[in-house]
Amino acid sequence: MFPINRFAKPYLITRTLTPENQETPIHFLDKNNPQSNLFFRRNHLPYPEVTEQFFSLPIIGEVFKPLMFQFDQFMRFPSKKLKVVLECSGNKRGFFKPRTFGEQWKDGAMSQGVWEGVPLRYLLEQTGLKDSVKEIVFEGHDIGERMDLSGTYRYIRSLPVDAALHPDTLVAYKFNGEPIPYKHGYPLRLVVPQWYGMASVKWLRRIIAIDHAFTGPFQTFDYVYEFADETKAPVTFKRVNSTILQPLDRSILKKQPYSIYGIAWAGTGMITQVEVSVDGGGQWRAATIERHDENPYSLVYWHIAWTPAASGEYMLMARARDSSGQAQPMNAIWNRKGYGFNGVVPIHIKIEG
Amino acid sequence: MFPINRFAKPYLITRTLTPENQETPIHFLDKNNPQSNLFFRRNHLPYPEVTEQFFSLPIIGEVFKPLMFQFDQFMRFPSKKLKVVLECSGNKRGFFKPRTFGEQWKDGAMSQGVWEGVPLRYLLEQTGLKDSVKEIVFEGHDIGERMDLSGTYRYIRSLPVDAALHPDTLVAYKFNGEPIPYKHGYPLRLVVPQWYGMASVKWLRRIIAIDHAFTGPFQTFDYVYEFADETKAPVTFKRVNSTILQPLDRSILKKQPYSIYGIAWAGTGMITQVEVSVDGGGQWRAATIERHDENPYSLVYWHIAWTPAASGEYMLMARARDSSGQAQPMNAIWNRKGYGFNGVVPIHIKIEG
Repeated sequence: MFPINRFAKPYLITRTLTPENQETPIHFLDKNNPQSNLFFRRNHLPYPEVTEQFFSLPIIGEVFKPLMFQFDQFMRFPSKKLKVVLECSGNKRGFFKPRTFGEQWKDGAMSQGVWEGVPLRYLLEQTGLKDSVKEIVFEGHDIGERMDLSGTYRYIRSLPVDAALHPDTLVAYKFNGEPIPYKHGYPLRLVVPQWYGMASVKWLRRIIAIDHAFTGPFQTFDYVYEFADETKAPVTFKRVNSTILQPLDRSILKKQPYSIYGIAWAGTGMITQVEVSVDGGGQWRAATIERHDENPYSLVYWHIAWTPAASGEYMLMARARDSSGQAQPMNAIWNRKGYGFNGVVPIHIKIEG
Repeated sequence: MFPINRFAKPYLITRTLTPENQETPIHFLDKNNPQSNLFFRRNHLPYPEVTEQFFSLPIIGEVFKPLMFQFDQFMRFPSKKLKVVLECSGNKRGFFKPRTFGEQWKDGAMSQGVWEGVPLRYLLEQTGLKDSVKEIVFEGHDIGERMDLSGTYRYIRSLPVDAALHPDTLVAYKFNGEPIPYKHGYPLRLVVPQWYGMASVKWLRRIIAIDHAFTGPFQTFDYVYEFADETKAPVTFKRVNSTILQPLDRSILKKQPYSIYGIAWAGTGMITQVEVSVDGGGQWRAATIERHDENPYSLVYWHIAWTPAASGEYMLMARARDSSGQAQPMNAIWNRKGYGFNGVVPIHIKIEG
């Protein structure tokens, strides 16, 4: 067993403070106690100051009936409550070789929470969408400078119409049963369950239906896979992935029985299999998946018993598969900005005694 | 400038929780505000439960007059207040290549604080030391299991007599003007200014003068340099070292003037020079050392102005020298357990725009 010391407690891990980017201490979380204050923080820009305007949400553009929704109305609309993994597409960037630039996230740029809100689809049914509509644009209230351009930019992203109309794409107003914390988009944020986190725009300011492809630096410069062969592709769905939570990399352990355990999650499917190797990828054994519900957007915990046969060094690995036919590759597909890492991360341990 | 966002705040960085080992977020500390709660935590064993016994300190063994000191007495003894860097000898272990096992500390397994206490020399003058004395042994109240041995072991370390009699080796009872925090050795801990942190035994239980060389697993198994050529040497004094605090490794920055800044510290000397290279070690320029006092045990801040000439990638480096003739090497001396890393750590950045 790898016991957790309840007396000691983990904290967020700072990657940058301007803007604030902090990882969740994923190896040390208590799976039975979702600590909202340990949800990872990912910001592109300074935190906005909340004003009255944050409590109104206009839906405009290529709609039949532009509407200005008020925060109070949301509580009276039909709602959904979804347990969702939000994962930064830069999660695990620090594992890419060759190294890439940007926040050097390890494996904690992701967290799970229960988001409650109104399906965006319901709101768009009120305004209607003209046939000409190609994308729905989401503006955040956060605004600031970029390293690569002069002037200031607002955080703005778009979704294709079908993703916007997905019944589980929410305009959320609650997180783990409480108002959304300020740093996570209070009072209204978008939650797009299957996508990497950049799609889930915080501090929603306006929603605009447009008849063309949106361009903006957070859409066309950032969040684009720039592969080694010079081809490009937008970052969209999360990739199937897993993480060994315990044991920790480079730890020194006893010769005794252990339970290797971790998490797995997917984008467009559900996790169907997790395999573990204790000999650096030679042999693989199926881990036990602890499936608590049939929610496709949440992570699963898995574990496997292991008793090291002898003292010495071991290389542990885990790999996951999902119901949409995706499998974690040994090596992630390298791309210049370091998005979508889902390669197998070997854990080296040493058994003593 | 690399501004610090006062609204966002850094936290300790968890390496392990059983026992608790947490780094200080050294790149994000406010140098004008020593936050005691961000002092790094390094433990070998579970935290002990404080009892009445913690407030008595016997000095026994090869002494003329064994004495049992009481906590209250310490306030009436002559005292010293010293600003000291305590650094784990495993600090920066995570930078060794080839990688070594153990806590994968980056550069935050060190912190500076003001320790106040009674010179141990004063106490040993009360008991006297027989001529036969070779070492002074310090027992901590912390006790527990090790990975490599069966049974339980107390944290015990020894010092050579001359180090124990150094006028600045303290039995400390205050930290930053307050009682020592529980996790840092309340109520009494040893502070050995020039040595790596393993010598500064927490939760002092007994002090024993012995006429031979002390052996114990925290002395003869741990904290021994095991070099590649099979030679061994005990870990003792801190090595001269420096860290670039800002910019952060792999950060993306603008083409504008910056102040590169960081810290430097030494073991047996004072920092006399810090040099910085922005071209991967080709050319070096002297940084400005901000020396606040003539205290040899504290760290110094340094900075140097730099305006990148063009967009592109840069490799920044810093190296320090001290008054005892030590200089930071480009590559740390590899040793099996990963102690004493003081090699130059290159910081890769990318200038955009």
